[in-house]
Amino acid sequence: MSESFIYGIHAVEKFLQHSTEQGVELFATEKRNPRLLSVIGQTRKANIPVQFASRDELSQLAGSDKHQGCVLRINVIAGQQKSLEQCISELSPNSLFLVLDGVQDPHNLGACLRSADAAGVDALIIPKDRSVKLNATVRKVAAGGAETIPIIEVTNLARCLKDLKAAGVWIYGTCGDAEQSIYDFDYKSPVALVMGSEGDGLRRLTAEQCDQLVKLPMLGSVESLNVSVATGVCLYEINRARTACS
Amino acid sequence: MSESFIYGIHAVEKFLQHSTEQGVELFATEKRNPRLLSVIGQTRKANIPVQFASRDELSQLAGSDKHQGCVLRINVIAGQQKSLEQCISELSPNSLFLVLDGVQDPHNLGACLRSADAAGVDALIIPKDRSVKLNATVRKVAAGGAETIPIIEVTNLARCLKDLKAAGVWIYGTCGDAEQSIYDFDYKSPVALVMGSEGDGLRRLTAEQCDQLVKLPMLGSVESLNVSVATGVCLYEINRARTACS
Repeated sequence: MSESFIYGIHAVEKFLQHSTEQGVELFATEKRNPRLLSVIGQTRKANIPVQFASRDELSQLAGSDKHQGCVLRINVIAGQQKSLEQCISELSPNSLFLVLDGVQDPHNLGACLRSADAAGVDALIIPKDRSVKLNATVRKVAAGGAETIPIIEVTNLARCLKDLKAAGVWIYGTCGDAEQSIYDFDYKSPVALVMGSEGDGLRRLTAEQCDQLVKLPMLGSVESLNVSVATGVCLYEINRARTACS
Repeated sequence: MSESFIYGIHAVEKFLQHSTEQGVELFATEKRNPRLLSVIGQTRKANIPVQFASRDELSQLAGSDKHQGCVLRINVIAGQQKSLEQCISELSPNSLFLVLDGVQDPHNLGACLRSADAAGVDALIIPKDRSVKLNATVRKVAAGGAETIPIIEVTNLARCLKDLKAAGVWIYGTCGDAEQSIYDFDYKSPVALVMGSEGDGLRRLTAEQCDQLVKLPMLGSVESLNVSVATGVCLYEINRARTACS
């Protein structure tokens, strides 16, 4: 069991709605506005102690000055998250997994988690050694998504994709050079959407495991979208296509 | 005429491809890798002088340490951008405008410009007084989009939307409370897509000018998407719907 911090009024509120049992203590400034008072009320209601702290102390705990006067210390319980086996045992035709192959920027990971929640993704899969970790910035940017989307860290991403394929999941990897577009499919099976990293895109070994490479149309002169924007566009298109054809 | 700075290898390269006449001088570190050497070559070819500078000097010019060894000083020429009148005089059934009603974060504005370029947007419209400006961070994040998409700053956004409507542009505003979804329309007319600010969404006065309010489905527990992700999803859906029905 390790600990982590959640900061910002909205992020702390979202966390308290979903996983109060993990909250250890809340640090808050003495100077309080109505929204901060409401967070403190919710924290006390969840039997989590509240401590005073200065703005500087909060910045140090959070690793950021965007804490809006509150930082929640939490226990991160290993094994609470879903396993790959569990996901596979619960597969349905509408299952949707997001695989991020080496995203490095905490803002991008956070925005992807936020979009994953909004698009009803079943789990996020990331490689253990080549991805930014779930830290306080990721949680803040995810706006609640980090508390709702199970995150599966895998040692060997290629093997994980093989296991998903063997279970009947169709693997779509996004790639600027792909011949087919994201709009060419109806996604009528369990789907894993694989997105590459910010600079390099999909690794060769990952791309080789995909059943289908797809691209997003690029009508202007930029070469690609930001990875979190591309993830949002693809997840929403998969859901739209599934609904349109049902 | 004012000046601005562009930093990062990719951002400088993109700029040189589109608007060499605005480049004044390039500052680069003495320690050079092949990509940096290539940028310097392109700069000299465009007859823009190159100066040595330390990493710290570059960080100071760029206002960021993510300059990758190069910072380009440019002239920002007022009036070079398109006017609203010009856009209206060039309207076609496929015209697509993006309106950002008070986006404050330079990363969000940059990502929106990148998506706008990718989605073939004709111009970005922002309110003069309530939006982050086109600074070096915006240009870097836009990955070239800031040099290709005309940006129209307007004093009175509500009046601008009225003028667009009078010219036959259909105004779609995104709003979490809307009854109709982004997927309910075929976008068979010139379209302006209006997105709200990060915290507050659309202002009442702006929403009142929209012909139609639309929402993105939210299947999980987060209340909204990041504004740049939502912008990307909506722009791509408008293009998809237009192509699907043609």
